[in-house]
Amino acid sequence: MSERVPDHLDETGAPCARHPAISDATLYQLAMVGSRAPAFHHDCASKLQGLVMALDELTELTENGDPQVVRAIETALEASRELNALLNINRALTRPAARTRIAMRELVARAAERVGVSVQGAMSDALSVMIGVAPVTHALALAIDVAAGSGRGRSLAVEAAPAASAVDLVLHSSPLPAPSVNEAVAIASFVAAREGGRLWCSTAGDRMTIRLPAG
Amino acid sequence: MSERVPDHLDETGAPCARHPAISDATLYQLAMVGSRAPAFHHDCASKLQGLVMALDELTELTENGDPQVVRAIETALEASRELNALLNINRALTRPAARTRIAMRELVARAAERVGVSVQGAMSDALSVMIGVAPVTHALALAIDVAAGSGRGRSLAVEAAPAASAVDLVLHSSPLPAPSVNEAVAIASFVAAREGGRLWCSTAGDRMTIRLPAG
Repeated sequence: MSERVPDHLDETGAPCARHPAISDATLYQLAMVGSRAPAFHHDCASKLQGLVMALDELTELTENGDPQVVRAIETALEASRELNALLNINRALTRPAARTRIAMRELVARAAERVGVSVQGAMSDALSVMIGVAPVTHALALAIDVAAGSGRGRSLAVEAAPAASAVDLVLHSSPLPAPSVNEAVAIASFVAAREGGRLWCSTAGDRMTIRLPAG
Repeated sequence: MSERVPDHLDETGAPCARHPAISDATLYQLAMVGSRAPAFHHDCASKLQGLVMALDELTELTENGDPQVVRAIETALEASRELNALLNINRALTRPAARTRIAMRELVARAAERVGVSVQGAMSDALSVMIGVAPVTHALALAIDVAAGSGRGRSLAVEAAPAASAVDLVLHSSPLPAPSVNEAVAIASFVAAREGGRLWCSTAGDRMTIRLPAG
């Protein structure tokens, strides 16, 4: 047996009372799904390759033909390219991510778009961080999804501020807790810590802060 | 902090010396990949639906046309169906699996096929287990992959024997340890325990046993 990585804390350094710790059963369940990913990606990529070859052949066979046919092939090819892009994003998560400089504004925009949340709050382009983009985008998406609560047409007030060699992103949490948020917060907290940063909640439960190394 | 689920043991009840415990960093890394799965599956399913609609339209537009075109569309449709089947298998892993009766022979055949291992050893069809098929197939695939070692054209000697209200599957391990096997064994061990069974290694390192509840 080994001690568990500590779950995220509140601003006083005590365990966060708002988001209970992730359970072993949940952590291993998620890890089980993750452990299937490399084989799954490999199998999908191979099927996708066969699909694109068939569509390329169709393109050649129907050149200068019925415009409806040409358009339908183009639609199918576009969907294949999008599937491939989704696959590549997921694959990047399974690999060690090189640290790259990226503006916090850009990072937050990508993460918020994934979970359909519109973020409010101006962020200076001068605030950039040095992190693994794939895992941190996913971690921020989890954190923003939790902080934005439930419902449709969600929006979230955010602000970014420089800290010593770091940038703090503050999410003004919705008072409505989203369901099964503790696992999302635990994973987001792990990623932030692995990147040399930290995630913490305010004791009042109205703010979540993600600190990332400045770049 | 909480105590970790114990890693798998050897036949004497001591921690297995052959497969070191999974590290927190690895466990959380796998869980991070797993936590992206629901959104990934949703996005892939949506793109795949658009793709199949375009291919169905193509089928209608080219009815009774050039046989080469018809064949290429059929190839593309077949690849889409296979992609969809892969997606459904992965989705099943993220959901609670109802326990189903399945012959151990069938379960082992499916798992071994996934990792390209040919299993040797006759198994009676009378030996059946009552388990969640999706997670246990994945767990057995991980265990078989580890036990079969590395190399091409791998084969593995297996045997199944009835135990009290259970069936024991014994994998005769290859002497060559596969790389990064400890995480695979830890996940397989977790799944076996969750199903009410158990995974253990022989102290000599030549056998791995997976016990599953009889059905």
